[in-house]
Amino acid sequence: MRIGIDAMGGDHAPNAVIIGAIMASKLINKESTIVLFGDENIIRNILDAQKADTNNIEIVHCSQIIEMGDHPAKAFQQKTDASITKAFKQLKEGLIDGFASAGSTGAMMVGSMLVIGAIPGISRPTICTPLGTQNGNRIIILDAGLNADCKPEILDQYATIGSIYAENVFNIKNPRVALLNIGEEPEKGNLLTKATYPLLKENQNINFVGNLEANHLLDDSIADVVVCDGFAGNTLLKMAEGIYNILKNDKYSAPWIDNCNYEIVGGTPVLGIDKTVIIAHGHSSPLAIQNMILSTEKTIEAKLETQFKKAFQVNPS
Amino acid sequence: MRIGIDAMGGDHAPNAVIIGAIMASKLINKESTIVLFGDENIIRNILDAQKADTNNIEIVHCSQIIEMGDHPAKAFQQKTDASITKAFKQLKEGLIDGFASAGSTGAMMVGSMLVIGAIPGISRPTICTPLGTQNGNRIIILDAGLNADCKPEILDQYATIGSIYAENVFNIKNPRVALLNIGEEPEKGNLLTKATYPLLKENQNINFVGNLEANHLLDDSIADVVVCDGFAGNTLLKMAEGIYNILKNDKYSAPWIDNCNYEIVGGTPVLGIDKTVIIAHGHSSPLAIQNMILSTEKTIEAKLETQFKKAFQVNPS
Repeated sequence: MRIGIDAMGGDHAPNAVIIGAIMASKLINKESTIVLFGDENIIRNILDAQKADTNNIEIVHCSQIIEMGDHPAKAFQQKTDASITKAFKQLKEGLIDGFASAGSTGAMMVGSMLVIGAIPGISRPTICTPLGTQNGNRIIILDAGLNADCKPEILDQYATIGSIYAENVFNIKNPRVALLNIGEEPEKGNLLTKATYPLLKENQNINFVGNLEANHLLDDSIADVVVCDGFAGNTLLKMAEGIYNILKNDKYSAPWIDNCNYEIVGGTPVLGIDKTVIIAHGHSSPLAIQNMILSTEKTIEAKLETQFKKAFQVNPS
Repeated sequence: MRIGIDAMGGDHAPNAVIIGAIMASKLINKESTIVLFGDENIIRNILDAQKADTNNIEIVHCSQIIEMGDHPAKAFQQKTDASITKAFKQLKEGLIDGFASAGSTGAMMVGSMLVIGAIPGISRPTICTPLGTQNGNRIIILDAGLNADCKPEILDQYATIGSIYAENVFNIKNPRVALLNIGEEPEKGNLLTKATYPLLKENQNINFVGNLEANHLLDDSIADVVVCDGFAGNTLLKMAEGIYNILKNDKYSAPWIDNCNYEIVGGTPVLGIDKTVIIAHGHSSPLAIQNMILSTEKTIEAKLETQFKKAFQVNPS
């Protein structure tokens, strides 16, 4: 397996990325290789300075970088030798099996949607994030902020996508899927959730357990996967981030809050496209990069595309 | 000032309500009177058993109770001698200056909207809840769950309502008002927040400080008042409640989390109607009832109706 990594992406790149890649190279499977996309000289200097064992690390030289200020779509067309652009080309061609970056989220989405593209039958790919829960488990929230406005049919698709992700990447058997809502009863909610509830109830691909109110988000009592529009999902995740920061400042520690640490989570997969793509936090430290690489490996292994194609087959014949 | 209290409302009524009222009777202003609505015999027995000083406690006998299972609007018509029905009649007639209950939220809303009614110019009254923040302050969130679907014009009104509430009840000078959003920049968000931003920017009644992402909700850095639709607001508050429960279970204590305690908050005002109405948590303990009564007194004193009428005057002439 060849795991493509953007060596130039992230606030602390390339140093943090390459140090994180060296850390990950000791933890990945023997058959896996980390393929670093970026300036070969710079990368080699850092690898040498770290006295890294580069047996399972390769470099694909790229002369350009998509900067945070670049317009993502334009940059993709104009900077054809940038690390992200080149990696997506190789991903499309099958030269690497997955790609992860802590760089421009916009460029990562352009690559995901335009170079790789959605799996037929999936209307809008999504991103999801796991939060740590009270009993040390994870709860997966999607959409995490990609699609701020959603139709009921889109949330219905997210339910299937999230269920497949939870089962195959987090090894949760028959995951409980809930709809984020502001009441327990089926008829409660806003226009979107009222219209979505009956669709989820009929969805044969999931174990639908009904509505989840946010007071039960982290207590493990209701669901493993929570479906909501990207506005609500992003708001939940950011609130968790804010509370995480306050509690860490207070030296509070517990499994549920430690599992909310983005350094441990290691990135957000783009789900519903025909390859494995992981987007990590711009601030990523070496530890965050290490875990981004490990979660990329795990996601590639899960062969989600095959599962998605089975669930969303457009012309079953 | 005459503070009307539903003696029969709440999971632990009438005992918890009357004990809470006795506690509050020692803390309210000398000129204030607590008026208990409910079964006179039952109330007197509890007051006697508690050996209460009833100098500033009165009773208005009511022979009926609106139960949680009753249809709120029908109960209002059929149970004309219920505590909530009778209290709203007295509130309308000016025999009491405000009314608070931990009973049927539905019936409280029917009374607020149909008996008291919205102030002219206010399209949809709202409920708001303060959360405790990192530095021991409060941040006011509205709508807290009454109106799950909102138009931009409604959020614009909520901004004015919340600003007046924060200034007059929480004594925050020139409160900073923000729009809950999933990005800092004006053009970020969902269809609703994108359309609301320019309205808030033009709103002369408020000190608009831009978008607030939920990671800054509790860190005091951006706003004193946060405007959002009732789905997002209710979700934020319930998430705070869930995390409050986990942290209390872990014996964690800090001003920001203690201030999130509903027993301390003491209830949610219905804002934008022509009287003071406070709705408290169904589980209310005596302490919660005490604080519900104190916050009712404080809200009556603030004369919010006058401020709202000034801001929303329909025919300024």
